[in-house]
Amino acid sequence: MEKLSYVGKSLPRKDAEIKATGAAQYAADRDFAGMLHAAAVRSPRPRIKILSISDAKARKVPGYVTLVTYRDIKGVNKWPVVMQDYPFLPEREARFAGETVALVVADTARAARKAAALVEIKYRELPYVDDPLKALEKGAVKIYGRDNVISSFVIKRGAVDEAFRKAAFTVEGEFSTNYQVHAYLETQGSVAVPEAGGGMTVHSTTQCPFYVLDAVSAALGIPYHKVKILQTVTGGGFGGKEDVPALVASHAALCAAKTGRPVKLIYGRKEDFQSMSKRHPGWARVSYAADKNGKITACRVKYVLDGGAYSTLSPIVLWRGTVHAAGPYKIPNVGIETFAAATNKVPAGAFRGFGQPQICFAQESLIDELAEKAGLDPVRFRLKNLLEPGDRTVTGQRLKSSCGLSELVQAVRSRSGWDKKAATPQVRGDIATGIGFSAVYYGVGLGAKGRYLDRAGALVNVYKDGSVGVNVGNAEMGQGALTVLAQIAAETLNAPYAGVRVEEVDSSKVPDSGPTVASRTTLMSGNAIIEAATPIRERVFKTAHSMLTGLGADPSGGMTAAGGVFSMGGRSVAFKAVVAECWNRRLKMAEQGWYAAPRTTFRLRDGQGDAYGVYSYSADAAEVEVDLKTGVTRVKKIWAAYDVGKIVNPRLALGQAQGGILQGMSWALYENLVYKNGIMVNPNFTDYVIATTADKPEYDITFIEKPYAEGPYRAKGMGEVPLIGVAPAVANAIKNACGARVKSVPLLPEKVWKELKKG
Amino acid sequence: MEKLSYVGKSLPRKDAEIKATGAAQYAADRDFAGMLHAAAVRSPRPRIKILSISDAKARKVPGYVTLVTYRDIKGVNKWPVVMQDYPFLPEREARFAGETVALVVADTARAARKAAALVEIKYRELPYVDDPLKALEKGAVKIYGRDNVISSFVIKRGAVDEAFRKAAFTVEGEFSTNYQVHAYLETQGSVAVPEAGGGMTVHSTTQCPFYVLDAVSAALGIPYHKVKILQTVTGGGFGGKEDVPALVASHAALCAAKTGRPVKLIYGRKEDFQSMSKRHPGWARVSYAADKNGKITACRVKYVLDGGAYSTLSPIVLWRGTVHAAGPYKIPNVGIETFAAATNKVPAGAFRGFGQPQICFAQESLIDELAEKAGLDPVRFRLKNLLEPGDRTVTGQRLKSSCGLSELVQAVRSRSGWDKKAATPQVRGDIATGIGFSAVYYGVGLGAKGRYLDRAGALVNVYKDGSVGVNVGNAEMGQGALTVLAQIAAETLNAPYAGVRVEEVDSSKVPDSGPTVASRTTLMSGNAIIEAATPIRERVFKTAHSMLTGLGADPSGGMTAAGGVFSMGGRSVAFKAVVAECWNRRLKMAEQGWYAAPRTTFRLRDGQGDAYGVYSYSADAAEVEVDLKTGVTRVKKIWAAYDVGKIVNPRLALGQAQGGILQGMSWALYENLVYKNGIMVNPNFTDYVIATTADKPEYDITFIEKPYAEGPYRAKGMGEVPLIGVAPAVANAIKNACGARVKSVPLLPEKVWKELKKG
Repeated sequence: MEKLSYVGKSLPRKDAEIKATGAAQYAADRDFAGMLHAAAVRSPRPRIKILSISDAKARKVPGYVTLVTYRDIKGVNKWPVVMQDYPFLPEREARFAGETVALVVADTARAARKAAALVEIKYRELPYVDDPLKALEKGAVKIYGRDNVISSFVIKRGAVDEAFRKAAFTVEGEFSTNYQVHAYLETQGSVAVPEAGGGMTVHSTTQCPFYVLDAVSAALGIPYHKVKILQTVTGGGFGGKEDVPALVASHAALCAAKTGRPVKLIYGRKEDFQSMSKRHPGWARVSYAADKNGKITACRVKYVLDGGAYSTLSPIVLWRGTVHAAGPYKIPNVGIETFAAATNKVPAGAFRGFGQPQICFAQESLIDELAEKAGLDPVRFRLKNLLEPGDRTVTGQRLKSSCGLSELVQAVRSRSGWDKKAATPQVRGDIATGIGFSAVYYGVGLGAKGRYLDRAGALVNVYKDGSVGVNVGNAEMGQGALTVLAQIAAETLNAPYAGVRVEEVDSSKVPDSGPTVASRTTLMSGNAIIEAATPIRERVFKTAHSMLTGLGADPSGGMTAAGGVFSMGGRSVAFKAVVAECWNRRLKMAEQGWYAAPRTTFRLRDGQGDAYGVYSYSADAAEVEVDLKTGVTRVKKIWAAYDVGKIVNPRLALGQAQGGILQGMSWALYENLVYKNGIMVNPNFTDYVIATTADKPEYDITFIEKPYAEGPYRAKGMGEVPLIGVAPAVANAIKNACGARVKSVPLLPEKVWKELKKG
Repeated sequence: MEKLSYVGKSLPRKDAEIKATGAAQYAADRDFAGMLHAAAVRSPRPRIKILSISDAKARKVPGYVTLVTYRDIKGVNKWPVVMQDYPFLPEREARFAGETVALVVADTARAARKAAALVEIKYRELPYVDDPLKALEKGAVKIYGRDNVISSFVIKRGAVDEAFRKAAFTVEGEFSTNYQVHAYLETQGSVAVPEAGGGMTVHSTTQCPFYVLDAVSAALGIPYHKVKILQTVTGGGFGGKEDVPALVASHAALCAAKTGRPVKLIYGRKEDFQSMSKRHPGWARVSYAADKNGKITACRVKYVLDGGAYSTLSPIVLWRGTVHAAGPYKIPNVGIETFAAATNKVPAGAFRGFGQPQICFAQESLIDELAEKAGLDPVRFRLKNLLEPGDRTVTGQRLKSSCGLSELVQAVRSRSGWDKKAATPQVRGDIATGIGFSAVYYGVGLGAKGRYLDRAGALVNVYKDGSVGVNVGNAEMGQGALTVLAQIAAETLNAPYAGVRVEEVDSSKVPDSGPTVASRTTLMSGNAIIEAATPIRERVFKTAHSMLTGLGADPSGGMTAAGGVFSMGGRSVAFKAVVAECWNRRLKMAEQGWYAAPRTTFRLRDGQGDAYGVYSYSADAAEVEVDLKTGVTRVKKIWAAYDVGKIVNPRLALGQAQGGILQGMSWALYENLVYKNGIMVNPNFTDYVIATTADKPEYDITFIEKPYAEGPYRAKGMGEVPLIGVAPAVANAIKNACGARVKSVPLLPEKVWKELKKG
């Protein structure tokens, strides 16, 4: 391996100080002279026909400025997300409780909220659907297209029916999972500032500044070059700031365009719960077949996601779930059909794992059942069937390299003491202890379904004083992108790490780089930075060599570059001095970089082809204690191993792993958003429970770096994979501990208890 | 010539609407939440030793926040302009009346000004110098270095003394010119906004955002990548916003850094007069020698500029004056020595023409005297001696191409009816009518003395919707850069002109592109745009070709591209559609461009070598009426012809010409800034008179385009050349009309009258 100065080191977070000291400027902190405030008027019922909207009472609130409705939209009233069925503001029908129907603008946020509460919507209730499985039934009320199907995919491989007929063992089960709320610390928010000449600058908390750009341009009906999106320091995303910030930003922009003044729109927590995206509730019926040797021969899946009232990202979320639905195994015969169904509930969208955790919970639970039927230990059973380098996935994609899954499984098996623990679950008093396993693969990046978006730009700008400014199109949202990308830039340029600054996104500095999702930022923006930095590197290195030669250094031993210093023949020169000389020579010291992901070959007809450029992998073992009297489960420890390629920053990678595990555990055990009659009943952190640090398990985390030749310094992507396998590992551990097979996430005490009663 | 769609057309100004409607946001219009206001405390006397500064009284003003002095400077207290002798804030000595000694920050601008007036400077007066010629005398009070010489240059060519000895005719004269005030509509101003993490964003009215970047970084002691300079819409520059905005911006930034809040600092007109740069007063003794055939054989020049209290740009201004001091003639023997002298007055700096108008007034006046001695008509005399392609300038530089001076002279001669008018000046009653001539060459760009800065960057960003965003490092200040550069970008990309937007400078988007001066913007930024746009053009053109082929177009006739449309074999496709397809193909649609001017070879020792890459040229004839009773001169008409290479936008070029002529005429006749005892006595538009539209002459303007192969679409540069030759043409016309040879600008009535009395 090449010798690296910065990549692979646990360098300090670039944004640590501003976040620790409170200096960081979140969207809510951005104030402008003459700024107004907006508040949303929301639909009170699951489905309504809007008859009229009146601000007669609202006008009496001191500071009231105006009401903004769809009539104020100068552009197109279609939010340009995948399928364009979501209006920026509804014209005749509102499709879920909490949908923004209009906006009130006032002098203060308080006045705006007060006035919004006084806006009267006259409406007629329409019949609604709140259950995705019922939505797909023939007689269902039609709320979306002809069949309430937002999106549907298939994977067809081999002869599934025949394989099931010939199988030695088969299992089948139905599984379901509930919503997960992103619970980012910072709610959604934007400040839109009108610019002279009809332009609009929008300050937005977002993972996807270019989605915001698309939306604001569409809503205002102005060209892209008149719109600038400035990502503000973003207090958590997890997918919750993928698509929906574009809606919030567009609303702010519509208000700013109408009033000609800056307008701030910051969501309260309740409306954020009610109207912003969530992890899709999922339902799946999965069957596996195996031969007498414990080799999986077939898999059949029907997988349904509850898309909510508008399609938003459901087609893409569903597609990822589809591709990964059979699990990381060699399976010759596969029949997968998947559906995103419309309901009159909040549109669900992106959440760390993106359609994989729901189906992974189902299939990894069922793999344990299949192992049991085959009379094999779950880990040994998995090892027989795992994808290894050279194997083909269920889409027929050959895994050429960088596939360390079986090593991960062995590592977790060994470190967790699996063989002994799994064979001998313990009961002490009312407490049963067990251990469960899961294995996961995760296609890095957007893959075939998002192939048009799977490219990224970067601007690398080396200033005269040797400081380096880097701009990318992907966003820091807490995951450490600014830091990891600074390491990559510093490494490529041989610039001192302290002198490299990666900024929050400015949409006018780099081209549309797609969304900051799919664990793609290190890979895509990292490669774009390298592409930009490489010609500058060549100029810097050549200049350093000529300076050293000029200093009388003997060039015979060649020049070395490390840690911001260039050395040759006993002499050395610092990056700063070399850059000054490059500027004296009038060399080009700024470059735009660009990276497009490798082409994919996936075809929709049968779901065959290369779905992703490369995969990351994880193995998880969870040790749990189940209180047999109450059904309460506590996760004691998680052993996890990851192959995410080269680790750019071990400490940040560890943080990603721990955060992903905890968030996965929280979803598995606690998080339970409840709808009754189409109305969300617990849109707050009092009634919606998430794991806290007090609940955190002990972590044992291992990285096994399988280098990815296409990746920046051989990295793949790591953001999501740690979450995905946690729920089935925990469910399998509960089963191991006490025999209860709970098929529904969250794995609430009452469900465990009910299974115990059955058993 | 290639067929062009946009270049060469009088397309509408890009900034016409925002300027006409008042939507344009000047620095004073930029407001931020929590913003404070600063006001300068200024030195009351020409030269003082500062004993103490007290805000005891100022503190009582409601809204007073703090006093900022040199002690608050965390960086280096040296403004990084050429010679670094100017402190951001003086520590012990203030060197001219009006110099900023400290700053007061308060809640409102009014409070800041009131408090600033109450700050007490205790000082001791020091002896001062207010005359540049006296400053150079041996016994002068020493206020700058050992000899009060800021800078000095020579040009030595041939054997001057011998040539004068052998001459058939010689002339000698002493000439002087006074200050010129830039009189931009918008005074200096900046708003500095502290950023989280110790950064600073500065909104500044400026021609030279990168000078501001240098200064703010130095004053605050923070790296460049933490400083962002956003040029605000700039209400006039003319050189007055070259260097000094960096000082104003640094003062605002120091106040913002100290208070942690945005700080606005907007100059009033009086302080702008007193402390901001001016055209240098000039003094010159010039001699010419000619042989009996009327061929100039030698030139001797001593040229002195009044630099004021700090060097600022004097060395560079002086250098340009030095190079051009002998005029645009073939002269084998040349001895030029030039000095910038320090005085305790406002530091003089850049002004359209940049050290040339002063010496041009002297030498072109004297060329008329020499013609008269040689018994030749001034135009015929010039035609004998003018530089033509293949000739060498006085620095020995061979003019390879693009030199249309003799054609310009012939054009003006012919259009003005010169031969008849010059030979027969008219007197009717008290009004004498005459005509005068001048010829000018102008080195485009920074030339050898500014060679390290003579490079420029550009960012070209083609958005998905086909709109184009362009950023450059040179500034629009009214001259039309945004428009001309948009034409160049549209032409290169074959993008619709309406869809191209060139933005005001953001120093973080493009590398240091040097100053917006020296008529270099079209050439430098234009070339950088072409460099950036060319690879995008290749992708767009290739995609268009493949789309047209896909549409079944017969490729045998080749593809044509014009006006935003691509055509082949009877089919066509629009730029917007082609760009959409480029995005589908995930092509790189943003690029950084870079252009460095050709190397120069000028050496300081003897002033020989290539001084500039290329020259622009002008010829002027001025027809005047002189009132013989009062000495009042009125310019009736100016005929001018220019060779500035290809004209990108004829209407804007015409505007540059008319503006330059009027500004030159105003300097020649009216503008008279008066100092008494080191104090400026008329720092306002009541007592300092400038030409208005009521004074404007009739214009007759001709462009003769001599293409410059290195220029963007063969353009050179045009901003300054129209001003330079006006004063001597007017002075020569006065001489022609009434025999009065006035050797001092402004050509005030009393001076004309005095010469008439002599005659």
